Amino acid sequence: MIKAEILNIGDEILYGQITNTNAQWISAELDKIGIRVVRHSVVSDTEEAILEGLQEAEKRADVVLITGGLGPTKDDITKKTLCKFFDVKLIRHPEALRAVTHFFESRGREMLEVNRQQADLPENAEYIPNLKGTAPGMWFEKNGKIFVSMPGVPHEMQFIMQSYVLENLQKFFHTPCIVHKMIKTVGIGESYLAREIETWENNLPENLKLAYLPAFGMVRLRITGLGYDQEAVRRQIEQEVDKVLPLIDKYVYGFDDDDLAIAVGRLLVQNKKTLAIAESCTGGYLAHCFTQHAGSSEYLKGALVAYSNEIKINVLGVKKETIEQFGAVSEQTVLEMASNIRKLCNADIGIATSGIAGPGGATPTKPVGTIWVAYADENGTSAKLYQLGNDRMVNIQVTANLLIDWLRRKQGGRVK
Amino acid sequence: MIKAEILNIGDEILYGQITNTNAQWISAELDKIGIRVVRHSVVSDTEEAILEGLQEAEKRADVVLITGGLGPTKDDITKKTLCKFFDVKLIRHPEALRAVTHFFESRGREMLEVNRQQADLPENAEYIPNLKGTAPGMWFEKNGKIFVSMPGVPHEMQFIMQSYVLENLQKFFHTPCIVHKMIKTVGIGESYLAREIETWENNLPENLKLAYLPAFGMVRLRITGLGYDQEAVRRQIEQEVDKVLPLIDKYVYGFDDDDLAIAVGRLLVQNKKTLAIAESCTGGYLAHCFTQHAGSSEYLKGALVAYSNEIKINVLGVKKETIEQFGAVSEQTVLEMASNIRKLCNADIGIATSGIAGPGGATPTKPVGTIWVAYADENGTSAKLYQLGNDRMVNIQVTANLLIDWLRRKQGGRVK
Repeated sequence: MIKAEILNIGDEILYGQITNTNAQWISAELDKIGIRVVRHSVVSDTEEAILEGLQEAEKRADVVLITGGLGPTKDDITKKTLCKFFDVKLIRHPEALRAVTHFFESRGREMLEVNRQQADLPENAEYIPNLKGTAPGMWFEKNGKIFVSMPGVPHEMQFIMQSYVLENLQKFFHTPCIVHKMIKTVGIGESYLAREIETWENNLPENLKLAYLPAFGMVRLRITGLGYDQEAVRRQIEQEVDKVLPLIDKYVYGFDDDDLAIAVGRLLVQNKKTLAIAESCTGGYLAHCFTQHAGSSEYLKGALVAYSNEIKINVLGVKKETIEQFGAVSEQTVLEMASNIRKLCNADIGIATSGIAGPGGATPTKPVGTIWVAYADENGTSAKLYQLGNDRMVNIQVTANLLIDWLRRKQGGRVK
Repeated sequence: MIKAEILNIGDEILYGQITNTNAQWISAELDKIGIRVVRHSVVSDTEEAILEGLQEAEKRADVVLITGGLGPTKDDITKKTLCKFFDVKLIRHPEALRAVTHFFESRGREMLEVNRQQADLPENAEYIPNLKGTAPGMWFEKNGKIFVSMPGVPHEMQFIMQSYVLENLQKFFHTPCIVHKMIKTVGIGESYLAREIETWENNLPENLKLAYLPAFGMVRLRITGLGYDQEAVRRQIEQEVDKVLPLIDKYVYGFDDDDLAIAVGRLLVQNKKTLAIAESCTGGYLAHCFTQHAGSSEYLKGALVAYSNEIKINVLGVKKETIEQFGAVSEQTVLEMASNIRKLCNADIGIATSGIAGPGGATPTKPVGTIWVAYADENGTSAKLYQLGNDRMVNIQVTANLLIDWLRRKQGGRVK
């Protein structure tokens, strides 16, 4: 089995100022292509430490993936150390220079000499484009082993891995194939889900494995298959998916990279329905769940963050007496919010949230975590009450997921 | 300076199934007592890998903190490997046996032989009580170096560190102290910032180090000081902060744990100003930046995600002719959005975004990344144009940061 070591460079990790999420992300990706990670090492931003890390990793692993220590400021000495390690010179790479020049020109920003220096690469480096930033990735081969150097900024590193490194590692090492299939569920807890599919799970073929991955009110089921014939493993997994789906159909919103909001957006487009949102406790996050994805303008007409009662009354048209009599966090208020935003935006569907996200705002009868949500369409308006926990950010996220799931069920579950 | 290495044992980390939060937590705690972490290593649950990790760590560090590989199941071979490393035997420790017996008795649970074996410790181990679980901590001394073995469950490890290890490390090593200070900037790139403060940086005292930590249009500057008199190092750092601040004052929104939106919220409260937001391309994310933090209701009246032109016209009151003549992504439209949301919400300040976040929506004259933002108050309304990149999520986040920064400058920079 091909062995890999992940070498992260950065004092900010050693000082405990940031979590090393890069190591986990890379490990999970390598696992998917059948490469075994045998070591994570985090070293300081010094030549001595980086060189020691490289030399040790070279002994243990066939692939060394390096992150961090690339950037325009002078504390970055990774490239010089790589030159020393490979016994080569730093040379200005024309393609890298064109890329960094384009990066600055397209943004109308002045380019400094330190930025130009980002195009200086060890002469044995294969240049890997980084469309997300200015520090390129580098691919090296030494005695049949592969070394890859990438910037430490997570979304830049992920871009380089996905657009170049993973594919080329598979080609280089002819790794056996692993096939993953993710079934994405919402609205059912992990242990209940496990009970529903117990018999099916116990009868899975030897080469297929199942994992439960829960987060914020949703559980992803991951089926992992191993084999040498990718198409055969894929077919085998699809057969198992066909068996398990009828058992949990109403909880399944999609597969693989499907996102709940994207899946629901697709349903709305299919059903030719438009959406309007009135948010109080979720404060814009619910709208953001939809708008962070391209294509949301096809069905989302608008959203109002009615944070103050004044806005609820004057802009959204909630009756003053409703708020005075029942409070802003109440069934009556949230029903008016959903119904009124639907009319205000001339949309087919209105949804609304009003709750106490915390840590402040609790009353004797309404503790932190008291959340009302509502749904309105041409058939009427209804509301649901949830009692969540004490963490503000978790409450915001779980509320959004629960309400989006309600919208999903009202729209028929999923696009088939 | 006393050097430490953190050695985490666990295949679940190497497979990417969990994030190694223990390494970060321990690093941050050691940093506070002036012990420099020089390496994080994660190794597999095998004797060979653990032994190699111990031998390497012994060469580099004065303190080796080990987590994981302790527990009742048979895959835990850490203790046997520690015996091999120290060349000692495993013996049943009476105090540890009493503790584990008590743990089970007090919970009314049956104790198995594998649980009794948890009281078997290498004979040179000092026993460290673990009141949160059944696997005890162990403290070893070898040639003036300290080795500590702890369970991998985070709250058990943290209990052992806080109740025993940190205090005993300080006593054993008479450690010097490290002081950190973070200066948080926005609105200037890393390389430009470096140019502004180059002379100051080059003249920093030997015992102070500077690092640049960039993300989404913001750069954090970290000054790290080392010395034996904590108060003196703190004063020395403050003197350097006083020197550098005038050079970059307008970019600095806060220090240490300050968050940009929280800092701007504080300014608004101090200035007794209320805020209203009209968002198009940021789609709710801008409001979420403020509302994710408790206390935002003190200054935020509301936000409108005017995603469709219909909402821009009918709810926000942007003139139909403006959108027809100049387009939704235009200076004229964003000016009306900021001005109108201010009036609609009866707020002191209105801010607005309209842009092409991507990947779709580009026109020949307006490429993806074309972003207009506007600011309105009692003195009038003005707009700014930015040309950002191709990544939708990055564009949304950077737009929010740039506009929050503009709001910050308009409100006086920062609370002083």
